[in-house]
Amino acid sequence: MSFAPLTPIASLLTDLAAGRTSAEALLDTALARAADPAGEGSRAFVRMMDDTARAEAEASDRLRRAGVPARPLEGLPISVKDLLDVQGQVTMAGSRVLADEPPAAADAPVVARLRAAGAVLVGRTNMTEFAYSGIGLNPHYGTPANPWDRETRRIPGGSSSGAAVSVTDGMATVGIGSDTGGSVRIPSGLCGLAGFKPTQRRVPIDGAFPLSTSLDSLGPLAPTVACAARVHQVMAGEPVRPIARRPVAGLRLAVPQSVVLEDLDGTTARAFEVALSKLSAAGAVVTEVPFRELLEIGEANAKGGFAAVECYAAHGRHVVRAPDLFDPRVLVRIHRANEQSAVDYISLIRRRAEIQAACNAVSAPFDAVVMPTTARVAPPIAELEASNEVFAKTNALMLRNCSVGNFLDRCAATVPVHEPGSAPVGLMLMGETMADDDLLSVAAAVEGLFR
Amino acid sequence: MSFAPLTPIASLLTDLAAGRTSAEALLDTALARAADPAGEGSRAFVRMMDDTARAEAEASDRLRRAGVPARPLEGLPISVKDLLDVQGQVTMAGSRVLADEPPAAADAPVVARLRAAGAVLVGRTNMTEFAYSGIGLNPHYGTPANPWDRETRRIPGGSSSGAAVSVTDGMATVGIGSDTGGSVRIPSGLCGLAGFKPTQRRVPIDGAFPLSTSLDSLGPLAPTVACAARVHQVMAGEPVRPIARRPVAGLRLAVPQSVVLEDLDGTTARAFEVALSKLSAAGAVVTEVPFRELLEIGEANAKGGFAAVECYAAHGRHVVRAPDLFDPRVLVRIHRANEQSAVDYISLIRRRAEIQAACNAVSAPFDAVVMPTTARVAPPIAELEASNEVFAKTNALMLRNCSVGNFLDRCAATVPVHEPGSAPVGLMLMGETMADDDLLSVAAAVEGLFR
Repeated sequence: MSFAPLTPIASLLTDLAAGRTSAEALLDTALARAADPAGEGSRAFVRMMDDTARAEAEASDRLRRAGVPARPLEGLPISVKDLLDVQGQVTMAGSRVLADEPPAAADAPVVARLRAAGAVLVGRTNMTEFAYSGIGLNPHYGTPANPWDRETRRIPGGSSSGAAVSVTDGMATVGIGSDTGGSVRIPSGLCGLAGFKPTQRRVPIDGAFPLSTSLDSLGPLAPTVACAARVHQVMAGEPVRPIARRPVAGLRLAVPQSVVLEDLDGTTARAFEVALSKLSAAGAVVTEVPFRELLEIGEANAKGGFAAVECYAAHGRHVVRAPDLFDPRVLVRIHRANEQSAVDYISLIRRRAEIQAACNAVSAPFDAVVMPTTARVAPPIAELEASNEVFAKTNALMLRNCSVGNFLDRCAATVPVHEPGSAPVGLMLMGETMADDDLLSVAAAVEGLFR
Repeated sequence: MSFAPLTPIASLLTDLAAGRTSAEALLDTALARAADPAGEGSRAFVRMMDDTARAEAEASDRLRRAGVPARPLEGLPISVKDLLDVQGQVTMAGSRVLADEPPAAADAPVVARLRAAGAVLVGRTNMTEFAYSGIGLNPHYGTPANPWDRETRRIPGGSSSGAAVSVTDGMATVGIGSDTGGSVRIPSGLCGLAGFKPTQRRVPIDGAFPLSTSLDSLGPLAPTVACAARVHQVMAGEPVRPIARRPVAGLRLAVPQSVVLEDLDGTTARAFEVALSKLSAAGAVVTEVPFRELLEIGEANAKGGFAAVECYAAHGRHVVRAPDLFDPRVLVRIHRANEQSAVDYISLIRRRAEIQAACNAVSAPFDAVVMPTTARVAPPIAELEASNEVFAKTNALMLRNCSVGNFLDRCAATVPVHEPGSAPVGLMLMGETMADDDLLSVAAAVEGLFR
């Protein structure tokens, strides 16, 4: 038996356990969709992993038939972003410049954990080169189109562009992404998925091609919050358990009045307003909070922030060696590294800690801080390809709200709140540092109101 | 009853317990020596703490007389370096530029732990301004003279200059110093004391005026290794227990043949050779190891290392505000911060980790790595005051060997190995990261051979 795109994984696990489908059947479906020349597979994936996926699916089916207890992700086709080390493969991170690097000597810990949990890894998903933008354009491997309004071909969001489309189009049940400034949540929001970015230290980032060692985190793009939570628990090496069910009534939600509501497009602003009304009507206590502390993040990042310098320190030799092989829009961002002195950087680290403490004090009384995941719905790919200026402006707007969570090292989830068939709009819920479980419970409660 | 300088604290604690002396008597002796106009007290201390010390001594005596169990440092006069926060006092760090700063709101954790352990804090010891040199000159508060060859007035070593002289001259039983590139071990070595620098994370550096947050550590300057170990355990918040006794026979000691044996003066070279011969004769297995990995430390630090940029990031506003109030020899070192970019700094952090791993592999088979604590014995103060060039060259030589331990984040101890009455020479023993207890045992065994 096949599976419909966006089927919750709990349902697939039940079907597998009951023998109504098999890991091989799920894989067949995923691979067939990825190979469909009329689909987005050739742009969503940079490399399929047919051979090992087939072996994983067969082994999973054999174990199930023999009565071996099912592992947490037993038999589920899952995609991994091109920046995760997979043993024996060159980690390209959406670039061309790494082609001559040696293949990875070992799976990244999260990849190893997914395999150990029974996942069937279908392939490596396309992404913004080096994960360094929130739009999802990739001049080397093409840009997969957003599932919404596919005739227009709109951006999927990035940097985990292929991860999102692999899930919306049923080429995987869940996609694994990385999130340095929103790279899990932006494509999740723009494509109508649930996306989760954990507190950084919760999931090991070893074996993930680094963009910013201060900000990078790894998380799932999934059909539902419950799906995301289960995969996150596996990635974190934590026991897999259901997330707590809690009612919307009584949830204390803070809506910052600084930064995050500026420059919204009409669709996003309306969807966000409607969402807040529904939450209030369901008994949530929605409180407008000035949160002027958020303004200080932009000031602290004025000299370029963490990403450019940390990216350059890790990968600068490629910039020096072969600048022509880079996406020029990524290259210009990496070059901002030169603007920052060591003293600036150390001061930024200290300032970050101060701002974290100030923001923690503001949000402590609430169950979550809520905001639109992105300021805009997905624009046409062609519009952004045509203009560097539009690209830069849109990129900044797409990243703005999500990047707050990375700077503060919070956990955060996005859930879809738009009307079915209309432009996807995500509602972002940001929790406290290391309170990932609580935030997932809150996100699941909110999500339930919009399905 | 009074106490002789350099009496081991175990002996004083026994005398106190037996009622043969009192905390007040010990304090009286310490304060009298510090106040002696013929002595070095006025240059060893920048501020006495008579009032609180008197109260601490009286309280300690009262507790003992009432039969309250003695705390680990009950009644012992101890000096603290001028960079440690003491509640209600301005932390000056050997400078003039901080005079208008607010007084410390709380004791540094190590100061609080010393007090809680029954120590009597006699005063704040003089130091190189901002702890930023290994010589010990201080143009604002004077330079205390080395106990050896006092007519010539030789340098005490730094930056914990006053800490060392407070102990050698019996104004305290133990001095608390900080060590960023040798600031505990250099004055210990040059003044004939046992000095211990722990693995950084072992002792909290909060409330210590920072020089380099990557390299700073806190440790004791003491009469013996056993004294240093006891005080270290209190500073680390660990249970106080005797260090293991182990024989010299069978100790595996590595002698690096790179970097650390270059440019030794004749006295130091001879004392080091004799020490190695004695160790071999006592059954230690002394092995010459190429250790070319140490050469990479200098290369990694070529753009100024950690201290300048971290110092500037923490205290740059004072440099901008009042450069004329600084020791010019310290100012020129802080200004090196401008040479380093953020990318350089991040690359240095990464390079440090690589060099640590490489060095760990080399030293793993040994109980300790041994080398002369400093390349030279203490030169006359006047010689260094007269020439910036001689100062810079001597400073680099004094710091060179000790700073290896800070860069690698190892624990390290220095023990005196010279003939009584001759120029003090220290033998440094460097242990593995977090193997502080093992290293102290080894250091105590080695020390026993030279007493």
